[in-house]
Amino acid sequence: MHPVVFNPTLEEVLNFVGTFVFAVSGSLLAVRKSYDIVGMAVLAVITAIGGGVIRDLVIGAVPPAAFQDVSYLWIPLLATILTFFAHVEINRLRAAMLIFDAAGLAVFCVSGTAKALNYGLGPGAAIALGTLTAVGGGIMRDVLAHDEPAIFLPHSELYALPAVVGSVIVVFIPRLPLNNSIAAGLTAVFVFVLRLLALRFGWKAPRPWRTTRQEESDES
Amino acid sequence: MHPVVFNPTLEEVLNFVGTFVFAVSGSLLAVRKSYDIVGMAVLAVITAIGGGVIRDLVIGAVPPAAFQDVSYLWIPLLATILTFFAHVEINRLRAAMLIFDAAGLAVFCVSGTAKALNYGLGPGAAIALGTLTAVGGGIMRDVLAHDEPAIFLPHSELYALPAVVGSVIVVFIPRLPLNNSIAAGLTAVFVFVLRLLALRFGWKAPRPWRTTRQEESDES
Amino acid sequence: MHPVVFNPTLEEVLNFVGTFVFAVSGSLLAVRKSYDIVGMAVLAVITAIGGGVIRDLVIGAVPPAAFQDVSYLWIPLLATILTFFAHVEINRLRAAMLIFDAAGLAVFCVSGTAKALNYGLGPGAAIALGTLTAVGGGIMRDVLAHDEPAIFLPHSELYALPAVVGSVIVVFIPRLPLNNSIAAGLTAVFVFVLRLLALRFGWKAPRPWRTTRQEESDES
Repeated sequence: MHPVVFNPTLEEVLNFVGTFVFAVSGSLLAVRKSYDIVGMAVLAVITAIGGGVIRDLVIGAVPPAAFQDVSYLWIPLLATILTFFAHVEINRLRAAMLIFDAAGLAVFCVSGTAKALNYGLGPGAAIALGTLTAVGGGIMRDVLAHDEPAIFLPHSELYALPAVVGSVIVVFIPRLPLNNSIAAGLTAVFVFVLRLLALRFGWKAPRPWRTTRQEESDES
Repeated sequence: MHPVVFNPTLEEVLNFVGTFVFAVSGSLLAVRKSYDIVGMAVLAVITAIGGGVIRDLVIGAVPPAAFQDVSYLWIPLLATILTFFAHVEINRLRAAMLIFDAAGLAVFCVSGTAKALNYGLGPGAAIALGTLTAVGGGIMRDVLAHDEPAIFLPHSELYALPAVVGSVIVVFIPRLPLNNSIAAGLTAVFVFVLRLLALRFGWKAPRPWRTTRQEESDES
Repeated sequence: MHPVVFNPTLEEVLNFVGTFVFAVSGSLLAVRKSYDIVGMAVLAVITAIGGGVIRDLVIGAVPPAAFQDVSYLWIPLLATILTFFAHVEINRLRAAMLIFDAAGLAVFCVSGTAKALNYGLGPGAAIALGTLTAVGGGIMRDVLAHDEPAIFLPHSELYALPAVVGSVIVVFIPRLPLNNSIAAGLTAVFVFVLRLLALRFGWKAPRPWRTTRQEESDES
């Protein structure tokens, strides 16, 4: 559908992986909050499709993709059922989950930016919408579950910024002397690695000037 | 407007009843939170029209019905004024409110699913949107009022699941050997009764496996 | 674009001022919450464009203005960077901020109502959407930052009601024996002054009957 795209089959597979992992993160949060299966299903669906649905409403792709391909509803429901029975085991797989989640982040920011460009939006808007596709569902998950959005918190490792970087790169892909699919694939890999490096080395986004300094002097 | 519909006049009346009762629940929550009349009006409007507006944006019915028929704005404002003066009395009518609310739930899930089908969405999407029409406003009410969404909480009686059941039935109505209006009406009655039975007998949605078990063993 | 408009250049300048001040209020809240720069940027963008984006989705102006003119994304990012370094100083300018914010409120309710009318919405819907344009971003800011919406709280001075008044007046402008631009400008000035008077004299929206009375008797 959009020209800037990596291998379509691979993109679809990665999109489904991202959808599934985002959905699991939604239903796991519901388990931690002691919600019932309705809360698990709602949070799974919202986390998985929330960002993409808002992107599609903004660019005028109506009905949004998540309401045209029923996989985007079935996958979160399967994730809910799996989490319902196996949340104890899934919680033990936290490291694996973070890796899959990084893959979802990477593929969503690339495909979201590409779709926005394809619908005629300018580069600035496309970067904003690519980032929104990647992080919007997680923000909606946290807001619905009455938590502070995880990506705002200063102790969280870089999450949105790798998506911004990936979205910016996608905007320049058509000017690169590279096959578009390959360039998009490499961009996603770059975002994925960036996120894993941030997790591994504890890279964090900067906090406002002097708040930090003041706290540091408080500590000393 | 949509073919799968019960008696149009009756549907309209029930839609207005649902809108009114949902609006009252929004402004009552504002009273409990000690908000002023602005908070009461915003929560009344959001609860009453929130689910339907998102459904209409998703299916491409723009402007949404709530912005075309001004009744959908006047009714929440009337509910706000009534609640402003009579919240003490309305709070005493909690049982009656729950019955009217069940009627709103029933009619919104049926008419929401029917409208989505009529706009060409597939059965899975229509079920999701029918349920969203019925429960979306209440979730938005709770989020705006800084509460956990009531329908997620494990001590709440079945609310979303009767709406899901009703939406699933509506998808099959065109295949039934029954007049569509009558079938839709019966579906709404079924959802209504299901919700009242859940209230009467304390039926609850299942909680994740082993969370429950663990707590039970904790208690013993 | 819309006929009921004050001087286009002045309207654009005021829109940019409003966008900037709303964005600063978003990133300042992020600072108070100890969020990192991602939280600051997200809250800045949401506060600045949130109300207008929902208005545009509802009236069918897709992509929303904020995604067509990249200034609406750059301005919040500039506000974020400024707040990042100068939040201490900006916090000291609270009085000036409130005055600029009142200007944003005034211009957003007038231009929002005018745009809705121009897209063919009825007077009731246009008033609701004009008010939403003015106050929607602030509500979304507070919800995302895990706060109760400031405009609901009973100790807050009139904020939404001046916007409602302004939106109502705009609906009547075409019937007034006045140049439309001048009438719209006067309306915005009126809303601006109303908000400043509310701040100066502590005018508050009424609270539900008997809640207030009861508390007063509690205090005595």
